[in-house]
This record gives sequence, structure tokens and C-alpha cells, in this order.
Amino acid sequence: MSRAILFSFKKNNFKFFISKKNFSSTSEASVTFVGLGNMGLPMAQNLIKTGAKVSGFDFNQSNVDTLIKSGGTRYDTFQSAIENSEILITMLPNANAVKNVWDDAAKYAKKNSVFIDSSTISPIDAQNLAKANESNGYICADAPVSGGVMGATKATLSFMIGTKKDNFELIKKILTPMGKNFFYCGENSSGQIAKICNNLCLGITMAGLSESLALGVKLGIDSKVLSEIMGVSSGRCWSLDTYNPIPNVMENVPSSRNYENGFSMELMTKDINIALECAKKIELDLELSNKTQEHYEKIKEKGFKNKDFSFVYQYILNNKKI
Amino acid sequence: MSRAILFSFKKNNFKFFISKKNFSSTSEASVTFVGLGNMGLPMAQNLIKTGAKVSGFDFNQSNVDTLIKSGGTRYDTFQSAIENSEILITMLPNANAVKNVWDDAAKYAKKNSVFIDSSTISPIDAQNLAKANESNGYICADAPVSGGVMGATKATLSFMIGTKKDNFELIKKILTPMGKNFFYCGENSSGQIAKICNNLCLGITMAGLSESLALGVKLGIDSKVLSEIMGVSSGRCWSLDTYNPIPNVMENVPSSRNYENGFSMELMTKDINIALECAKKIELDLELSNKTQEHYEKIKEKGFKNKDFSFVYQYILNNKKI
Repeated sequence: MSRAILFSFKKNNFKFFISKKNFSSTSEASVTFVGLGNMGLPMAQNLIKTGAKVSGFDFNQSNVDTLIKSGGTRYDTFQSAIENSEILITMLPNANAVKNVWDDAAKYAKKNSVFIDSSTISPIDAQNLAKANESNGYICADAPVSGGVMGATKATLSFMIGTKKDNFELIKKILTPMGKNFFYCGENSSGQIAKICNNLCLGITMAGLSESLALGVKLGIDSKVLSEIMGVSSGRCWSLDTYNPIPNVMENVPSSRNYENGFSMELMTKDINIALECAKKIELDLELSNKTQEHYEKIKEKGFKNKDFSFVYQYILNNKKI
Repeated sequence: MSRAILFSFKKNNFKFFISKKNFSSTSEASVTFVGLGNMGLPMAQNLIKTGAKVSGFDFNQSNVDTLIKSGGTRYDTFQSAIENSEILITMLPNANAVKNVWDDAAKYAKKNSVFIDSSTISPIDAQNLAKANESNGYICADAPVSGGVMGATKATLSFMIGTKKDNFELIKKILTPMGKNFFYCGENSSGQIAKICNNLCLGITMAGLSESLALGVKLGIDSKVLSEIMGVSSGRCWSLDTYNPIPNVMENVPSSRNYENGFSMELMTKDINIALECAKKIELDLELSNKTQEHYEKIKEKGFKNKDFSFVYQYILNNKKI
């Protein structure tokens, strides 16, 4: 299917043209972008910058206005936006929100339109969404991201893409203005699987590392020395060598700015929760994951939901008395 | 103190000469090496290869004989070996064994002799041993290793060294024929702290990673694809990118040879146990560490004590039914 869609890049312009029997004529393709939050808005703006025609939707009207000021296209209704675009991109807080938008879009979208979801949702939900909409004649992909608001703003996101192999190049080209790395993870839902497995591992690693570091620091070793040695030993991990949870061991990480402006406890618990729900459905018992989630949930309950997840180090160091 | 000891390197020969008022004359220094197991024997042999005079002791007499065949020096008693050497190196299974040997050596050793323990023992025990023996006039260091039997054989071990700062260069020179990396961790016991913190983190990371990978594989993503993506994402860790627990994702790792000839469950539980005992003594609650240890202990109980610790992946993948 994807081979029916032709692309042309003009200098730095991101323009693509669609020529397909289902469409009346060859025309510049346009995008409907739903979910203009901290991530979605800069992503949509980056699409516009490289030449795409983008209309945006969000419950927050001021974000929609911001997009229009950035060169976005205005449509009075979602229906007319969808009827005038060939690509739908969703960046929403949960699977229900994505399903509502995709269901609505499916009423009006032209056949062979492309539906891409960049939200982080359950792989099981992603699978169901893809099945329903592929059978309706749409090209579907899950493409969750890593890289945070910074990556969204600087167009350096990593996209983990689950879609039919034949569609990968098409999906990648559509996403190119918003990211730097594009991983083909496998069939639909594989992008979401990669995302939640990575973030689950990240969550456990950070908590386990924090136990090790707290023990070392309490026993009297210098935290920088310990981090340096572990960083070239078998305890090496991203949480240690790139995102160290001990204040002032590294610069420019949340722990060195009072755990502010990072990947929040709220987002981490959301992702681990997706992983745990999947595990439950397939009856896989993940004890460390459960224990890790308990930690993060307790920290949230104590009023630290906006702290970076590496704050778990302080929680452990202080024997949960924070 | 260490500056009183002079070294001379002749080509590849490792010879050192001691000149100190406590010693009768300048003479070639010699080493008493206690604990000639899988690690200790090749370490002592590497010392001999580079020119040191080494006498070895072990409960297993055939290992002592092997060392003598490799050029080791024979003494009929431990007392005479100690009386004729300036350096004691221990590589033993536990702190009690080390304490017995050091206590015995302290009866006969010349003042300013060097006592190095390369066993993995509790930092608290290491601290006590150092205190007692430094006050008796000995130069003490804890210098546990990483790199396993392969590293011991090839003289590529990493030594994590805890000793007075002034003694570090001396200790490093003594250990040089047996290793490649020499980390100064801080005052006495810091080497042991670094070692157990690293191995605790390794143990948790492997178990947590295994939960993430098992979830991904069960949900249907290709294990190599998932490993590759996580290896360049925030879930990256040594257990994933250097020691992957899924069979045939990487070559030359225990998981690809039926989890044989690796870092055994027995050794991993021993190291985590040291960490947990320390944590208990300083009243630090490490819940993930405890949960991880439970996993490894259960696997051991099921008859897999000699399997590599990455076998925890199979334990989790099969919902503990192994």
C-alpha cells in the first residue's frame, strides 16, 4: 500500500504528494494532529517548519491558537480537518483518548489514510486499534517516542515504530521532521512493546541502582568514586552513567537541580502501570516490577508526583522517611 | 610508609626490593599467597611469571604442588613462609578464613609487611581487619577483583583498592602482574564497598532486565530487536549489552551456552548476602535487593546453584516453574 504514496523533498522542505486511485488527484498531503500538549505542540510545529500542512486539535484552545500562529491550518470541525488530510497523528494521555479520536476519524477519513499514534499506550490496546483500522483500509502504526520535551522541541526524538514492514519507510518519512532515530520494532504494537519494556527496565534499574548507591554512600565511599568505578564495571547502566540520581555527581541531570524538570514520578508510574497490566493479562508474574511500582507510588502519595523519578534515590537513602 | 619500599622493574620482570630500617638488608621481596582456588592459583602463577618469589598455601595440596611446579617456593610451614616474605595476599572464600590467616600471619610477619586481601568480604570485616593490623604496624589493603577466572588467568583483572592514599601506588605495583585496571576507591574497606555495591546493582539489574525482556518476548517482539533498541535507550545496562540473558541474542555469553561457565548463582547470592548484611547493620531497608536475593536463592534451591546468574531470565519467563 505504501508504495502508492510518493514523496518529494524540496531542500529542507518536507512535502509529500499522494497519488492513489482512492484520491481524486495528486495533491500536497496534509496532517491532522490531535493532542497539542508539552510533546504534541512542538512536534506539530516541527512538522509545519519543514513544509507540511498541519491542523491541530486539543482540549486546550490556546494550544490550538499557538499552532495556528506557527503556521497551522484552521478547520472549524474535526470532520472537515480529517476530510482534508491524509495523515492523522495522535499524541494523547491514554488509550481511551486515542481510541475515541481514531474511531471518530475513521468515520470521515479517505481510504488509505495513515493513522499514527505516538502516545504511550498498552501494546494490547495498540494491537486492537491497528486491527480494527487496518481492516477499514487505513495504514496504521504505533510510534511512541523517547527523548522528552527537549527531544520534541529540538526534533531529536527517537520513534519506536510498530507497523507492517512494507509501511515502515512511509511512516519513517512522515515522522522524519520530528525525530532523529527511527527504530523498526516489528508488526503493529511492537513499538509500544519496546517502549514499555524499556521504561519498565529503566524504572527498576534506577530503583535498584539507588539501593546500591545508598548502601555505598552510607558505608562511607565517595559517591563520585563509586559512580566512576561502577560506570566501567558490570553495574554500569544508563541511570548511572547518564542520569546519575545522586546530586552533583553529574551536571545537567534532574538530581543536580533538586529533581525538577525531569521524567516525572507520574509519567514513570503511568508507564510501569501499562507494563504491569499487560503482564497481568498474559499471567506473567513480575515481582521486582511490582515492588518498584510500589516505591514510586508511595513517593507520589507523599506529594512528589512532579519530581523526577531519580528522586527514588532520596527515598531509599532516607529509609522511606521523606 | 610506602615510600620506604623501592621497586625495580627489569624488562618484563616484576622484582621489588625492600629497604627499610626494620629489615636487616635490601633484598628481593617475596610473597606469601594464601588461597589457591580457581582465582588464586592463576593469580599467584602470574605473579611468578613476572619474577616475584611466591610461596602458596591452600587446603588442597595438589594446588600447592601445581604452584610449585610453576616456579613457586616451598616452605614447610606457614610461619617460615611469612618470616621469609614481606607481602601477604589472601584470596579466600569468606571473612573468617581471611581473619584466621591474617591473625596467624601477624604473629610472625616483619613490621611494615604488606597485607592485601583480594577476597570479596564484608566492608565492615575489612575495616576491622585493617584497623587491627595497621595498628600492629602492617600496611593493609582490601583489593577485591572483578573479571572472573578468565581475568585471573589472563592477568586482566580489575582491582578495587581500599587503602591509605599514600599506600596506593605501592599496592598497585604489587598487584600489577595480576591485573589491568586498578581503581583507588578510598580508605581501607572502600574497595570492598565498591565491589559489593557493583555486584548488588548487577544482581538487581539482571533480574529487573529479565522481567522487562520476558514481558516483551511474551508480548511478541523479537528478542534481538528489543535488545538492540533498549541498548541505545534509557534501559541500557551491562546485563543487556554485554551479558544478554536471552539465549543466542549474543555470542560468547553464558545464556548462549546453557548458562554454564559464568558467574554462578552461588557466587551472586554470596555477594548480595554481604551487601544485605551490611545494610542490616546500618539499618538501611533495601526491598528490591531483598526481593532479588529471594529469586536467586529460590533458583539455587531448585538445583541450579552452578548456573550463571543470568539464568534468572528463564526463571521469570517460565513464571518460576523451572
